[in-house]
Amino acid sequence: MSGLANRYNWVKSPLIASAPMRLISGPALAHAVSSAGGFGFLAAGVDVTNLSQDLQTFKSILSTSPVPNYSLDVLPVGVGFILWGADLQHTLQILSQPDTPPPAAAWLFAPSNPSQLKSWAEGIRTATESKTDIWVQVSSVADAIETMAVASPDVLVVQGCDAGGHGRYQSAGLISLLPEVIDAVSAYCDKKDIPVPFFIAAGGISDVRGVGAAVALGAEGAALGTRYLASEEAIIKKGYQDAVIRASDGGVSTVRTDVYDKLRGTANWPEGYGGRGVTNKSYEDAMGGKDFEENTKLYKAAEAMGDAGWEGEEARMTTYAGTGVGLVTKVMGAAQITREVRGEK
Amino acid sequence: MSGLANRYNWVKSPLIASAPMRLISGPALAHAVSSAGGFGFLAAGVDVTNLSQDLQTFKSILSTSPVPNYSLDVLPVGVGFILWGADLQHTLQILSQPDTPPPAAAWLFAPSNPSQLKSWAEGIRTATESKTDIWVQVSSVADAIETMAVASPDVLVVQGCDAGGHGRYQSAGLISLLPEVIDAVSAYCDKKDIPVPFFIAAGGISDVRGVGAAVALGAEGAALGTRYLASEEAIIKKGYQDAVIRASDGGVSTVRTDVYDKLRGTANWPEGYGGRGVTNKSYEDAMGGKDFEENTKLYKAAEAMGDAGWEGEEARMTTYAGTGVGLVTKVMGAAQITREVRGEK
Repeated sequence: MSGLANRYNWVKSPLIASAPMRLISGPALAHAVSSAGGFGFLAAGVDVTNLSQDLQTFKSILSTSPVPNYSLDVLPVGVGFILWGADLQHTLQILSQPDTPPPAAAWLFAPSNPSQLKSWAEGIRTATESKTDIWVQVSSVADAIETMAVASPDVLVVQGCDAGGHGRYQSAGLISLLPEVIDAVSAYCDKKDIPVPFFIAAGGISDVRGVGAAVALGAEGAALGTRYLASEEAIIKKGYQDAVIRASDGGVSTVRTDVYDKLRGTANWPEGYGGRGVTNKSYEDAMGGKDFEENTKLYKAAEAMGDAGWEGEEARMTTYAGTGVGLVTKVMGAAQITREVRGEK
Repeated sequence: MSGLANRYNWVKSPLIASAPMRLISGPALAHAVSSAGGFGFLAAGVDVTNLSQDLQTFKSILSTSPVPNYSLDVLPVGVGFILWGADLQHTLQILSQPDTPPPAAAWLFAPSNPSQLKSWAEGIRTATESKTDIWVQVSSVADAIETMAVASPDVLVVQGCDAGGHGRYQSAGLISLLPEVIDAVSAYCDKKDIPVPFFIAAGGISDVRGVGAAVALGAEGAALGTRYLASEEAIIKKGYQDAVIRASDGGVSTVRTDVYDKLRGTANWPEGYGGRGVTNKSYEDAMGGKDFEENTKLYKAAEAMGDAGWEGEEARMTTYAGTGVGLVTKVMGAAQITREVRGEK
């Protein structure tokens, strides 16, 4: 269990990562998580335009509020990239600035194809002299083996079907997915005589019990998204955060769908991906067969209402969250969340 | 952790139950599981016609091969009932035979409505002088609270979305579902000043790691179905069993659907239930829009082929299994499975 804590020397076991949530996981959240012995992630997502600024902001927070024990050759933070949309060349420029150490990890997700994943892994390793570890998120055994073959990641993030936001429609819960991936990848590495990567569990984990389950299943740690939506440091509208706190019975109240992608106009995801979130009137209307243009008009009107667009029977705004949303019952500081889910008081 | 092992004195912790799989879980399987310190279940399912005979057979095996430590006032076995189809009055007659102790538990699933669940729980308690514990299978927080209100079960079996065979389409994986159900039911019991039931986890658990995860999430034990499909004692066609052994990547290779119910003519399930199984040509053809009568004809033809109906590209036979199917790699004795998943050598 000490592997990842040795590799990232500010991290305590089990490793608790804040997932890179696009537009939501900024420098303050990432810093709070890392400062509590977790692994904070920034979210570049599909657009790296703000990444340079985010890294500078992180560095600036770090200079006044150091993360204990981190080594100086990398920043104690990771960055998440959505490969089908992000610009690799621009990313490599940002990660190889001579005045700034590179992030400790790049979390790669949703490539258009395997060769794109290969280019990203090789490009980042070259640009950072392998100081930046390659984390790749997968959601099936087939994904995991293909990823091993093209990218030899340092860490596999195994994403179960319960995850909020984007993931594959065809997936399983961690309770079966994680051990099967570990067995298959370990056998593959044994055959190829290469090192077995570390495994981080993601999807539906909201509290210390979920983290304990992930460890029992063979992971070195867990990545949490939904739980950090309810952190003081998340960049999130109050209406969205309140909706997360209110939601319960996550298997019934959330669904993986492309309805919100379509309504928001972010419909460039590769085949097979959908976003899990709390259902509301937008989803009900789409399922009820309402005309798409009419539904979009109502969505835009809800958007213009601000926080009220998430409230009541007529709530229409996108509320991405995993099935663990019912275990998220209050807003807390991200450092406190990190310690609590790791099992500390 | 010793609660259920005290209640069922032949059982070791954590409790390992073989799920009541209709037509598959017979007396030999149930006896092998209980004899290894687990909790074996017979499957009455929707039709109790054979239940009396199954209980007699179980008793007869028991007389020559006793289960260690069981008390004489109940049989060390449970029976599973699918409430929308099973006959309550006939069941009560069978369970109150003066010459045979009643089973230690009745596992109730899929009532047509809450009042039916109430009638079953009350009827069985009266007929067996509460010797037969009431287990109820639920798959959401709402289900669990309603069940507490109408049936006050001794045990809640919490079924995650990864479960094979029938379950609700709207559910979550155990990693989020189980802790949320435990919190909500515990709060309910506290408010009503009634005892908290025991919790058993089901759905996607195939090995000792899954059982460990269930315990970390707060369960006293786990129920396994798919794993026992690959037991020597299961009443199962070799073609089906071989298909289970072959299948991998359960989140991708299985799906919850009503296609096989329709093809088999068992389409009386209440709204909202589907059966998870390994997909094959029947499913692909249904999704591809093939005429239902034509698909049924092909299904019947596959059925007539026996084991070959499960083989190759043209496999069409129903292959219910959970997402944990990829962790099931060989046929073993049910007693050995029970000990292995409990963590013994």
